Amino acid sequence: MAGKTPFRIALMGAGRIGKVHGMNIHHHPDTVVHYVVDPHEASAKALADSVGATVAETDTVFTDDDVDAVVICSATPTHSDFIERGLLAGKAVFCEKPIDLSIDRVNAVLEKTRDCTAPFLLGFNRRFDPAASSMHARVQAGDIGDVELVTVISKDPEPPPLEYVKVSGGLFRDMTIHDIDMARFLLGEEPTSVVATASALTSQAIADENDVDTACLTLLCDSGKMAVITNSRRASFGYDQRIEVHGSLGSLRTENVPATTLVLERAEGVRRDSPMHFFIERYQEAYKLEWQHFVDVLKGECPASPTGVDGQKALLIADAAYESLKTGGHVSLK
Amino acid sequence: MAGKTPFRIALMGAGRIGKVHGMNIHHHPDTVVHYVVDPHEASAKALADSVGATVAETDTVFTDDDVDAVVICSATPTHSDFIERGLLAGKAVFCEKPIDLSIDRVNAVLEKTRDCTAPFLLGFNRRFDPAASSMHARVQAGDIGDVELVTVISKDPEPPPLEYVKVSGGLFRDMTIHDIDMARFLLGEEPTSVVATASALTSQAIADENDVDTACLTLLCDSGKMAVITNSRRASFGYDQRIEVHGSLGSLRTENVPATTLVLERAEGVRRDSPMHFFIERYQEAYKLEWQHFVDVLKGECPASPTGVDGQKALLIADAAYESLKTGGHVSLK
Amino acid sequence: MAGKTPFRIALMGAGRIGKVHGMNIHHHPDTVVHYVVDPHEASAKALADSVGATVAETDTVFTDDDVDAVVICSATPTHSDFIERGLLAGKAVFCEKPIDLSIDRVNAVLEKTRDCTAPFLLGFNRRFDPAASSMHARVQAGDIGDVELVTVISKDPEPPPLEYVKVSGGLFRDMTIHDIDMARFLLGEEPTSVVATASALTSQAIADENDVDTACLTLLCDSGKMAVITNSRRASFGYDQRIEVHGSLGSLRTENVPATTLVLERAEGVRRDSPMHFFIERYQEAYKLEWQHFVDVLKGECPASPTGVDGQKALLIADAAYESLKTGGHVSLK
Amino acid sequence: MAGKTPFRIALMGAGRIGKVHGMNIHHHPDTVVHYVVDPHEASAKALADSVGATVAETDTVFTDDDVDAVVICSATPTHSDFIERGLLAGKAVFCEKPIDLSIDRVNAVLEKTRDCTAPFLLGFNRRFDPAASSMHARVQAGDIGDVELVTVISKDPEPPPLEYVKVSGGLFRDMTIHDIDMARFLLGEEPTSVVATASALTSQAIADENDVDTACLTLLCDSGKMAVITNSRRASFGYDQRIEVHGSLGSLRTENVPATTLVLERAEGVRRDSPMHFFIERYQEAYKLEWQHFVDVLKGECPASPTGVDGQKALLIADAAYESLKTGGHVSLK
Repeated sequence: MAGKTPFRIALMGAGRIGKVHGMNIHHHPDTVVHYVVDPHEASAKALADSVGATVAETDTVFTDDDVDAVVICSATPTHSDFIERGLLAGKAVFCEKPIDLSIDRVNAVLEKTRDCTAPFLLGFNRRFDPAASSMHARVQAGDIGDVELVTVISKDPEPPPLEYVKVSGGLFRDMTIHDIDMARFLLGEEPTSVVATASALTSQAIADENDVDTACLTLLCDSGKMAVITNSRRASFGYDQRIEVHGSLGSLRTENVPATTLVLERAEGVRRDSPMHFFIERYQEAYKLEWQHFVDVLKGECPASPTGVDGQKALLIADAAYESLKTGGHVSLK
Repeated sequence: MAGKTPFRIALMGAGRIGKVHGMNIHHHPDTVVHYVVDPHEASAKALADSVGATVAETDTVFTDDDVDAVVICSATPTHSDFIERGLLAGKAVFCEKPIDLSIDRVNAVLEKTRDCTAPFLLGFNRRFDPAASSMHARVQAGDIGDVELVTVISKDPEPPPLEYVKVSGGLFRDMTIHDIDMARFLLGEEPTSVVATASALTSQAIADENDVDTACLTLLCDSGKMAVITNSRRASFGYDQRIEVHGSLGSLRTENVPATTLVLERAEGVRRDSPMHFFIERYQEAYKLEWQHFVDVLKGECPASPTGVDGQKALLIADAAYESLKTGGHVSLK
Repeated sequence: MAGKTPFRIALMGAGRIGKVHGMNIHHHPDTVVHYVVDPHEASAKALADSVGATVAETDTVFTDDDVDAVVICSATPTHSDFIERGLLAGKAVFCEKPIDLSIDRVNAVLEKTRDCTAPFLLGFNRRFDPAASSMHARVQAGDIGDVELVTVISKDPEPPPLEYVKVSGGLFRDMTIHDIDMARFLLGEEPTSVVATASALTSQAIADENDVDTACLTLLCDSGKMAVITNSRRASFGYDQRIEVHGSLGSLRTENVPATTLVLERAEGVRRDSPMHFFIERYQEAYKLEWQHFVDVLKGECPASPTGVDGQKALLIADAAYESLKTGGHVSLK
Repeated sequence: MAGKTPFRIALMGAGRIGKVHGMNIHHHPDTVVHYVVDPHEASAKALADSVGATVAETDTVFTDDDVDAVVICSATPTHSDFIERGLLAGKAVFCEKPIDLSIDRVNAVLEKTRDCTAPFLLGFNRRFDPAASSMHARVQAGDIGDVELVTVISKDPEPPPLEYVKVSGGLFRDMTIHDIDMARFLLGEEPTSVVATASALTSQAIADENDVDTACLTLLCDSGKMAVITNSRRASFGYDQRIEVHGSLGSLRTENVPATTLVLERAEGVRRDSPMHFFIERYQEAYKLEWQHFVDVLKGECPASPTGVDGQKALLIADAAYESLKTGGHVSLK
């Protein structure tokens, strides 16, 4: 695929995250948005206009030889089908997580596309956050010796709308799955069991859906390494995104990123800016670097990572965490 | 007891923590070290000389009417007996944790001294750390709304000597018990179950003793509130002591305290001082404020807190955490 | 000018800062780079190609009715002429500082363009840094009461090449002028005298040019308010850019911005990332917001600020600072 | 003097700072407060009682052979006389700054005691602050290469009472003198000129006394190194005490010290504790380490530092700064 830049991208979905990727594709010197697809015509047209692309039908994307890659930002239930069609058509695929909320469907996608040679990048965007990728690089470089304990603190600023809660797959499959992927990324060893503790504290609506909004997951590896994830659907002060890796020679940690470094000191105390409000702002740079990685993949310079298998493994752990809520104990991942 | 200051204190134990309390007693305007007791005569004499006290036999302490209060800093196996003798003799007692490593013995002490009117303060020193007590006050004042998730990060700078490991009662009863008390202090509700995950990663010696050195405990309350404790016996960078309380209206957290605020900036990065090395330095102020609280108790100005019941409840949770390591699941505390 | 978006921009200069503005113009939905002008043909062509523009001759820019605005990023000696030609041709002008190194020439430009109605924005980019503009807004809102003392700490990571030093106009006219503008921006009152202390410490080459590289300027207003600027041409750890405003009710300050929030803790200390290396990275967001401001000006939504008068006043202070080095005392600005 | 511990100390002055030193003397294992002298009898008695000392007349102090050292915390006008009498009587002397507000008187004291062999320590307490002394040690160790620019930011939380302003000697001799000493301590070279800019902004009372409360001093050395001091008599948020040293290989800086590390995050922002309110709290540890240094001097283990000459040189600079306010320019210190 190398050499024929700019790569022509078909963008499935013109919603919030579709716009983020659309602009990154548009602003990257090696890529152009070729098609925009969205059942909501006005959204498709607005985004297509702003990046000089054409509104297209779904089928066109998978049959037009001009399309080099498909970027999937559409509704979750469409993901697995689009991934299959894209990869089977020989197009590179970049899909926002999740592949699907059902592990059976995920397994089927991976099985069906097993022999496809086109690259597949799954959008666990946080791996591309400069602080997280620098942390990972330092862990790999041995700066903290052997990893012993990974801690992921992850809280959203506010619970999603109830309609979204209903189709989200639940806290673990929707939100915690990012943290599970980060834990796997940093542990450097597959967890072999998980235990979860959770409750519904932020809204009655979530409790009514039999979902949870406040949780702690502990993942254990055969070597004894472990990871701890704490979650809440509601941090009134903003998007709480912190990671720590404790190792035999030291620790690495990342802090929240305030809007600015401004400090106001008055008699009543010292006041700083809150963390950036949510993922669009906080991971703005990560989304750009994620896209740069996909371009590098398109150029044949490196393999895609994370891939569908990472999505599959994270979902297995999320499912096991729900199982743990029922049994009250560690659930084996083997 | 009010009014007859300075209060005369009998100090049991002239070791590391005995010296800390000995100097605080000596420097407080309302208290004097009257007796020092230690089986190691030279230590007893050295400490007694430095504070103008007399070396005494154990029995003297509990029979001499001049003694207003007994401060127990001796070896763990002597604690429960000294507590009983002190309280039954009508003397105020301040005892370093633990009361005993056996919950049966702890229950017996509480039972036997149930009708004693002399105050009993148990040395969970961290409650008196200015950051922790200020955090507790703000939680009580409603600054963060309803408590939802308490996080206690607690790592020692290095594993204790093997001889100590053998008699320590294990990680949970020796070290985690402080964090369990902190979780109880901040949750404002009794946990009703606990699940623990742990491994031995820092030294073969600890593994050989069938103990663990790296752990995560999750405590759950009936209301759904939870607390997460992470521990390691070895943080190469110093004493890692941080607490967070996440609530419906915000969060509170404490950070590690560096030796100084000095910052060195050079081409290779920005360097700050490490956290204070261990508890003697880190909780120096807490020990002073703890002693001030005991003096207030001696003056009749407030009841002692934390008490023996707090020690009992924390030990019950530590025991349940060990049980959880065997069962792999939540253990009920009811 | 309102309404005829996208505005067509002629970009004078395709060097480092020309590329920054070129990409911001290109990525902004309301502006396009129409022409690129640069005596170095290859640079002009490369930049023009990357933004879909045409390489043009200087004269074309000022005679072509298609050009809505001129952005001047060319060599300093060309600035004043381009500003005059642009404004007299009725085109909006955005010029990188300085207007000219000679105050006589600056005065002449302002005199000659006095009756022009096209807007003129001078590129004191730091006013658009989110931390600085938020600081200014809080000062205006009265958050710290009356301003009393403004402190600007500004150090470059390394001295410029000797060839640049020769034509830079010297430390005060080249580098300090940004800090003088920031002081004026935040003081809210014109300084009426300045005293400077300076020396050449970082390189013999700068001393040989009779210039200085380490300096302190103090600006005093009639009301007694003052501002202090400290400079160095060489901060081995990166670009040191901090501001403080002390007022009757409190203080505001901004801190350096590290590349990431990653913290590494090991036995030898706590290590964080250095400040961003230089202005292209540090003020990336400021340049975008500066461009957004110019677009708002083009749309007629607000007047341009800062303008040529701000450049004139800052240069007068820089000149007076050089005078102060000779007299050793405060130099009046009246 | 070595060996005859505990050293018996005569304490002149039982006011605020007298109490600080009195308790440090009392708590140090090698020193005892022998006499307390204060014209206000009740204060003298209260302090003497709390440390087990005797109230004495001034003459007794200088004639009683039991007195090893004199600590002078009395009113400024008594300092120079007590220093002379103490040193001439062969007693070690530790005197709070200043020696005197008049440089002639200071010169006379140093002349008259020139041949005295008893040690004389002048109380520039900030040199003993752990952050400042660690900074000094790193500078000496070459961690930042050659010193180029020292910055001292020093603001009091509130102006002193008017009665104090009247007898204080003015901002430069009373408050700035500490910062001048710190600049000299860190520069490692004597400044040869000073320029000052100042105004009265915080209160009409200070203006009425013809004094100033807001100031910037710049000190220049022959080598070109410089130091910048900024002062205010009123920082509404607390005691603002920060130092920076910029060198050829990097920078060192100290930050303010908050009461605790507690952080409160809510929707309206991130709030931390204010800096400690004033010098008694902020320099509590410095006063202890200063006393430890004096004990080391008494034991003959090291020479006293800073001494009377440091007080003399700092006062010369403060006087020159006032001269500079009149001339508007640099005043030579040669």
